[in-house]
Amino acid sequence: MGANTFGHHFQIHTFGESHGPALGCVIEGCPSNLQFDLDLLSTQLQRRRPGHHGLQTGEVVSQRNESDIPELISGVFEGRTLGTPIAILVRNQDARSEDYREIQTQARAGHADDVWKMKFGHSDHRGGGRSSGRETVARVMGGAVALMILKKLAPELRIVGFTSQIGTLKLTEEEKSQFLKNSTTSLHPQDQYFARFPSQRDQEVRDLLKTTQASGESYGAVAQIRVTGMPKGLGQPVFHKLKSDLASAMMSVGAVSAVQLGEGHAESQKGTDFHANGNSSQYGGIRGGISTGDDLILQVTLKPTSSILDVAKKGRHDPCIVTRAIPVLEAMTAMVLADHMLLQRMDHI
Amino acid sequence: MGANTFGHHFQIHTFGESHGPALGCVIEGCPSNLQFDLDLLSTQLQRRRPGHHGLQTGEVVSQRNESDIPELISGVFEGRTLGTPIAILVRNQDARSEDYREIQTQARAGHADDVWKMKFGHSDHRGGGRSSGRETVARVMGGAVALMILKKLAPELRIVGFTSQIGTLKLTEEEKSQFLKNSTTSLHPQDQYFARFPSQRDQEVRDLLKTTQASGESYGAVAQIRVTGMPKGLGQPVFHKLKSDLASAMMSVGAVSAVQLGEGHAESQKGTDFHANGNSSQYGGIRGGISTGDDLILQVTLKPTSSILDVAKKGRHDPCIVTRAIPVLEAMTAMVLADHMLLQRMDHI
Amino acid sequence: MGANTFGHHFQIHTFGESHGPALGCVIEGCPSNLQFDLDLLSTQLQRRRPGHHGLQTGEVVSQRNESDIPELISGVFEGRTLGTPIAILVRNQDARSEDYREIQTQARAGHADDVWKMKFGHSDHRGGGRSSGRETVARVMGGAVALMILKKLAPELRIVGFTSQIGTLKLTEEEKSQFLKNSTTSLHPQDQYFARFPSQRDQEVRDLLKTTQASGESYGAVAQIRVTGMPKGLGQPVFHKLKSDLASAMMSVGAVSAVQLGEGHAESQKGTDFHANGNSSQYGGIRGGISTGDDLILQVTLKPTSSILDVAKKGRHDPCIVTRAIPVLEAMTAMVLADHMLLQRMDHI
Amino acid sequence: MGANTFGHHFQIHTFGESHGPALGCVIEGCPSNLQFDLDLLSTQLQRRRPGHHGLQTGEVVSQRNESDIPELISGVFEGRTLGTPIAILVRNQDARSEDYREIQTQARAGHADDVWKMKFGHSDHRGGGRSSGRETVARVMGGAVALMILKKLAPELRIVGFTSQIGTLKLTEEEKSQFLKNSTTSLHPQDQYFARFPSQRDQEVRDLLKTTQASGESYGAVAQIRVTGMPKGLGQPVFHKLKSDLASAMMSVGAVSAVQLGEGHAESQKGTDFHANGNSSQYGGIRGGISTGDDLILQVTLKPTSSILDVAKKGRHDPCIVTRAIPVLEAMTAMVLADHMLLQRMDHI
Repeated sequence: MGANTFGHHFQIHTFGESHGPALGCVIEGCPSNLQFDLDLLSTQLQRRRPGHHGLQTGEVVSQRNESDIPELISGVFEGRTLGTPIAILVRNQDARSEDYREIQTQARAGHADDVWKMKFGHSDHRGGGRSSGRETVARVMGGAVALMILKKLAPELRIVGFTSQIGTLKLTEEEKSQFLKNSTTSLHPQDQYFARFPSQRDQEVRDLLKTTQASGESYGAVAQIRVTGMPKGLGQPVFHKLKSDLASAMMSVGAVSAVQLGEGHAESQKGTDFHANGNSSQYGGIRGGISTGDDLILQVTLKPTSSILDVAKKGRHDPCIVTRAIPVLEAMTAMVLADHMLLQRMDHI
Repeated sequence: MGANTFGHHFQIHTFGESHGPALGCVIEGCPSNLQFDLDLLSTQLQRRRPGHHGLQTGEVVSQRNESDIPELISGVFEGRTLGTPIAILVRNQDARSEDYREIQTQARAGHADDVWKMKFGHSDHRGGGRSSGRETVARVMGGAVALMILKKLAPELRIVGFTSQIGTLKLTEEEKSQFLKNSTTSLHPQDQYFARFPSQRDQEVRDLLKTTQASGESYGAVAQIRVTGMPKGLGQPVFHKLKSDLASAMMSVGAVSAVQLGEGHAESQKGTDFHANGNSSQYGGIRGGISTGDDLILQVTLKPTSSILDVAKKGRHDPCIVTRAIPVLEAMTAMVLADHMLLQRMDHI
Repeated sequence: MGANTFGHHFQIHTFGESHGPALGCVIEGCPSNLQFDLDLLSTQLQRRRPGHHGLQTGEVVSQRNESDIPELISGVFEGRTLGTPIAILVRNQDARSEDYREIQTQARAGHADDVWKMKFGHSDHRGGGRSSGRETVARVMGGAVALMILKKLAPELRIVGFTSQIGTLKLTEEEKSQFLKNSTTSLHPQDQYFARFPSQRDQEVRDLLKTTQASGESYGAVAQIRVTGMPKGLGQPVFHKLKSDLASAMMSVGAVSAVQLGEGHAESQKGTDFHANGNSSQYGGIRGGISTGDDLILQVTLKPTSSILDVAKKGRHDPCIVTRAIPVLEAMTAMVLADHMLLQRMDHI
Repeated sequence: MGANTFGHHFQIHTFGESHGPALGCVIEGCPSNLQFDLDLLSTQLQRRRPGHHGLQTGEVVSQRNESDIPELISGVFEGRTLGTPIAILVRNQDARSEDYREIQTQARAGHADDVWKMKFGHSDHRGGGRSSGRETVARVMGGAVALMILKKLAPELRIVGFTSQIGTLKLTEEEKSQFLKNSTTSLHPQDQYFARFPSQRDQEVRDLLKTTQASGESYGAVAQIRVTGMPKGLGQPVFHKLKSDLASAMMSVGAVSAVQLGEGHAESQKGTDFHANGNSSQYGGIRGGISTGDDLILQVTLKPTSSILDVAKKGRHDPCIVTRAIPVLEAMTAMVLADHMLLQRMDHI
């Protein structure tokens, strides 16, 4: 399978460099006759853009301003999928390559510039080229189509990603419970909170990020992905365990440095506590690699933005990538789940 | 790609149920002309067996006693690989199915018995069937062949997995440094320690596990996988990032519930600390999805054995799976690295 | 996908050298709960053996005598499939390697010995190693499992391969019509005829082959594969056209040098004749890469056995491989069809 | 592997409907640092267009007029490949959908309209949608990139496809020898002949096709693909035999109904004749699935255009598709060879 392909049956092939003409994806394995929800696609792309969910562009986020309007090239006719590949493009418009000119001679610390150069002998130095975070646009598009499938095949299913930690600032158990309890109807309840940190301590979060940015600093974070309305029986034996595919999906996102299935502390808890009845959140909704029908819970650690080390960007870097990463992590989750929903059709004779 | 297949070019296809005639694997994509090191294969299988590294069988580990002698079916001739699939079998000999008879009607808590039954409609209840830990024998065999490749292509490369935490008992930074410093020549330096916990506190570890077992309890753990002599440039763009493939590999092992790349605390550290010069252990040897040549560091969390909940096994269950998991995690690491070593041949024209 | 793997979702991974311990396959993607028909498996293996269908072993066929008893290693429990990989072995028993000793220094003309040696640097010279016709045992096993799936999902479907030409001796249109008309109930109607050439001219065929063998000569042949009871809608767009997968399947068999879809002469007929109403046999049951429900018709050309050039085998070579090839071609067809029957489940949302 | 993906390591993913906004492909697995030859890409696209090689558009070919200018989206920077996916688009400009309006209710005989409709429930009726011959634009683009690889890795290699039969009009052995002898330096020597039929009987061919078209008739044909300067050792064991991949490649092209490896008549010749010394053209350059270094020879049968049955197109249909098919068949050949050239890097340790 190609290095830019994700998925078993439902697959995306992504392409595009940060400062090339466009980014895009080709989606294979999407069944025919699916209502294609262009609004959903646009909404997801907007949710990934800087400046969304009440933030001002350039306030505490990357300043590149792309409208990210999707251009649908193939696979959809009269509003429904054809069973053929769905190709979608997003043009790069605000690519200010001149900012990156100096990188040609000097690799940015913490970035992949030097390792790519070493690996491929030739690289597109402009804005990270293919290793730019802008690559995630294509993932969000694939995720949006996956959501269309899930909406049809598992209408109860809902994927909500939220920030549970920024630096040393942690969401309390109470804040989390409150959020999860109150968020059952809204589609993107986390988007009402600054930095998608679902707490009444909005101002505290805002201050933290502003100060961090102003001082040329950055912070890592933890995002939690929570899926309710999970179907049972997703996942396959041994290597295609649902948790294995999800771990691969999360870790394929640039800034991610750790993935945990479930809550709790598996490494230090006693077995009788960890496995105590009803403690389904410990298992994170997966046993033996297969979904149990309980909520799927993933905890994803993001490392601090490395652009702080990048003299050119200092002052207009993103002090914490988590806010923008969440729609990407949700998209990856959606693709894994849609893929396994389809694969499940093969389980029985 | 099949659900029981792992790898891009260097692939293993595994098969076998815990209480069927045999377990095995077919290895595809191994180049021809490789010296096939049968001793290495046997040693790795032995390292995975209960009772290895100074432990008495049945002391604090699973009591099933399998000799795990590999039978080489194909792909090797006159001591060298043919470039054709390498099939290897290990017979199941000590499969006491009667112990599992009661599970037919009653699924074991914490195990996958119920979800498999629900998923497939039909399942082999004996000892977990395909979802048994015994399945990992095939991974160790694949890993052994991967090691043969690595020995040839990256002679400096050495994969060492060790226990860094059992329950609340943690290896200190000093113990770890000491171990890493002193272990540069020996092939399996961790095997000299009880539970592969490289500390002088052997007796403490032994006592902890014995008490835990006697009281019908179990503990989770953290294993650290450390690869020295890493080649630069391994890993592919976007979805086949080295960290993504490694996360998938680790999480495909039954007991694993979390994977972290590198040391440190990416979520809570300041960016300037995390990215501080020379702090290569934070990155875990990978940047932009590609190996930097620094040591590869993975931290793998294992949940507490669930067999404590299994009345039939109580008293002869494994109080902590980490000791036996380590050769499996090392094998998965070896396969990912060998695969990417070969794929690297495609990087340049 | 591995070079020894065939299929998209329903896959076989095959392994084994002609003079190694065993040949075998691992079948992935077979749904659970399928009745496993061990008799069908044995029957198909027997149908491939020399000496079957009324011929005396050693009369006009290869003299190696293998019993080809399948050993079922995994994937089946209590007579039904588990949804896990099905591994099956067949031991090599009558491997008289000494006959091949001279080949070590002298490659056999027309065989692959020299090109393999050149390609891999190292090869198993004994009986062709992996490139021996004996490799097809694994295909027949995969085909047998595919037939079990087809029996369940498309009970009307029947695959019949027969010889339509040996050298210049052709089955007449009348003989063919007669055979197809009379063969609708019997499972392997072609097996009642010498060399699977369904004609009353049995004696003529027998004489031809005996004379050919005695004179150290061999002949090519044409096999026709005919599938009745075909489901509609099998095949996928563009690259996974049903005809493309079938062509790949047929051409992967050693002796095959040409594949034609349908009857008639597409290259020389006028379009209005070729496309004339009802002439479905011209299309061979596939249009636009997708099955129409009409009979699937494949014509497969086999080249003359090259063992005539092999001094060591002269006199006991197979004068025409078609008789033994037919069960292999049927097996390949069965696998393609079973694969697409399962993939069809993904067509619609 | 996706149904719109071709290749093992060097892969193309194609997309696009005949009357959608564009057609395109994403090429994965192309090594970095390859000189990207935009002229070669354009030339190949032009060679596939109607009206090329001295024919007037609309003379004896399809009248849709597309300029087929490639838009390079990604994977190339400063004239060299990056090792990242190469995405290329070609816009549909002259899509006169109104001509196809009637098909909505009435499927075109001989076309795939009805089977697609049946398969997917929903289809794009305009001009065949995805099953239109226009889909082959993407193949030609993939083939052009494959040619760039081959030019670098096997500079002597040259792929020449020519027409060897149209209806009952056959190229003589003498004409063929003459052509092959005289064509060793020119890049596309066949393009100097009407209908790529390399004979002095140009006028005869032209007359045949004009009469055929005028009478609302069509003809099938045979194209021969000949590769000189073939590297040795291409192809893989068992299922990825070079001939198997080539057969799949050829048969994936809509109009192809048969594929033969080599010249001669394997089915009717005596073995001693077929295998006679030096008769390498019989083997077609492949033995045991692996290239021998001799010329690769494929004979590809194309069925008569079915558009004659299509009232809407009568009079401006293509009387024989072979001329336009040749660049497509060459492209498929190039992709198979480039893929195996790269895979060969994995053969030895």
